[in-house]
Amino acid sequence: MNDQVLDRLRALGLELPEVAGAVADYVPWVASGGLVLVSGQLPMRAGKLMAAGSVPGTVSVAEASDAARLCALNALAAAGAAVEGDWSRLVRAVRLGVFVQSDPGFDAQHTVANGASRLLVEVLGEAGRHARAAVGVAGLPLNASVEVEAVFEVRGGGEGAEGLRG
Amino acid sequence: MNDQVLDRLRALGLELPEVAGAVADYVPWVASGGLVLVSGQLPMRAGKLMAAGSVPGTVSVAEASDAARLCALNALAAAGAAVEGDWSRLVRAVRLGVFVQSDPGFDAQHTVANGASRLLVEVLGEAGRHARAAVGVAGLPLNASVEVEAVFEVRGGGEGAEGLRG
Amino acid sequence: MNDQVLDRLRALGLELPEVAGAVADYVPWVASGGLVLVSGQLPMRAGKLMAAGSVPGTVSVAEASDAARLCALNALAAAGAAVEGDWSRLVRAVRLGVFVQSDPGFDAQHTVANGASRLLVEVLGEAGRHARAAVGVAGLPLNASVEVEAVFEVRGGGEGAEGLRG
Repeated sequence: MNDQVLDRLRALGLELPEVAGAVADYVPWVASGGLVLVSGQLPMRAGKLMAAGSVPGTVSVAEASDAARLCALNALAAAGAAVEGDWSRLVRAVRLGVFVQSDPGFDAQHTVANGASRLLVEVLGEAGRHARAAVGVAGLPLNASVEVEAVFEVRGGGEGAEGLRG
Repeated sequence: MNDQVLDRLRALGLELPEVAGAVADYVPWVASGGLVLVSGQLPMRAGKLMAAGSVPGTVSVAEASDAARLCALNALAAAGAAVEGDWSRLVRAVRLGVFVQSDPGFDAQHTVANGASRLLVEVLGEAGRHARAAVGVAGLPLNASVEVEAVFEVRGGGEGAEGLRG
Repeated sequence: MNDQVLDRLRALGLELPEVAGAVADYVPWVASGGLVLVSGQLPMRAGKLMAAGSVPGTVSVAEASDAARLCALNALAAAGAAVEGDWSRLVRAVRLGVFVQSDPGFDAQHTVANGASRLLVEVLGEAGRHARAAVGVAGLPLNASVEVEAVFEVRGGGEGAEGLRG
């Protein structure tokens, strides 16, 4: 799906961000046994957090859904780094974990998460469909409104590679 | 364990629900590399949410544990769909993630989660034992009291199948 | 990395705890397809919870980070049990899920989680680097301040083994 992915990103007006190298003892992604596990992604764009605060009091559901979409784009970029830009090696999305910083009584975490899910299907087509868990949390790093972690299935490439090249 | 599973369900007076097809960009389950990852399940029965509100203020620990049991039944149904009803292909339960909508100070999420864990062992026997994480969250989709996601190990069948048949 | 792991633990003044057998319908770990999934670990030492209450109101960030380190040590002990003490079978850490019991407004879950991440790298070296999700939750079992679940990659050994020997 090499060209398709790039074509779809272009058609959507999206650009994959650079994947930062490890900034700590954890890394953006780890490949193991045909799976790539991507670390929890925040709604960062060009190093800037785009959505801070709880939902829906500080950040609206629509804004949070956009933020989830951005998280998913960052997760996709990490998957792209894991396959070294060879999207033909990306078999499919497998799972998203979506954590929404939630005010008391907020119960539409699924609507926020749909922003992340939609992005994967828009870019990967049917291969973007995934299992998902969406929950409301009490807080997130840097006061982010949303955090999204992801699992992808890949083929080929060395086992045990990890996001340490940056 | 084909007949055993059906016998045990019958003995427990339980019926596996229909597994809904994809209602959005995510799907009830994804099979990848010998694992089936099941999306977060809510305590739904026949399309109706059976436990709404936080624990223990609105929903008691016993009620929440029953709700977790129902979530696990729904997850089991998704696993059954993944193996196309051939339970001999289900090797074992691997992991449960249990999210409990928790009032401040509530610290018995493990007791709630036991309702889900018990169901798997009652139906699958030793193969139902699993790794588990149980945490208290600030909110859940549709105001559900509990959400349970699951991973199962399976054998045979096509790789990359997903819950898209419904 | 057999001797290395033991040497590093010794150099750090750390001792791996005994891994409790199953106390319920879930187990400390499950091995499936080259992965070991470790159940959510609390900051227990010799059967005693070392950090209770929310962060940072009741437990400081530094204390919570120490607690996360202890959780990771317990997770490492479970991985050691999964490879039956043969650390040469442990290929690498794959993923940590870190749940921090968070007061409203707390947004440094990553700093707490670094305590767990650091321990893995100190003991396993480069093989300790992992994907990670760190979130703030409303409550945890036994009022623990932190819970850490883990995935490791292993080689050899029987498939489908589980933490049932205790």
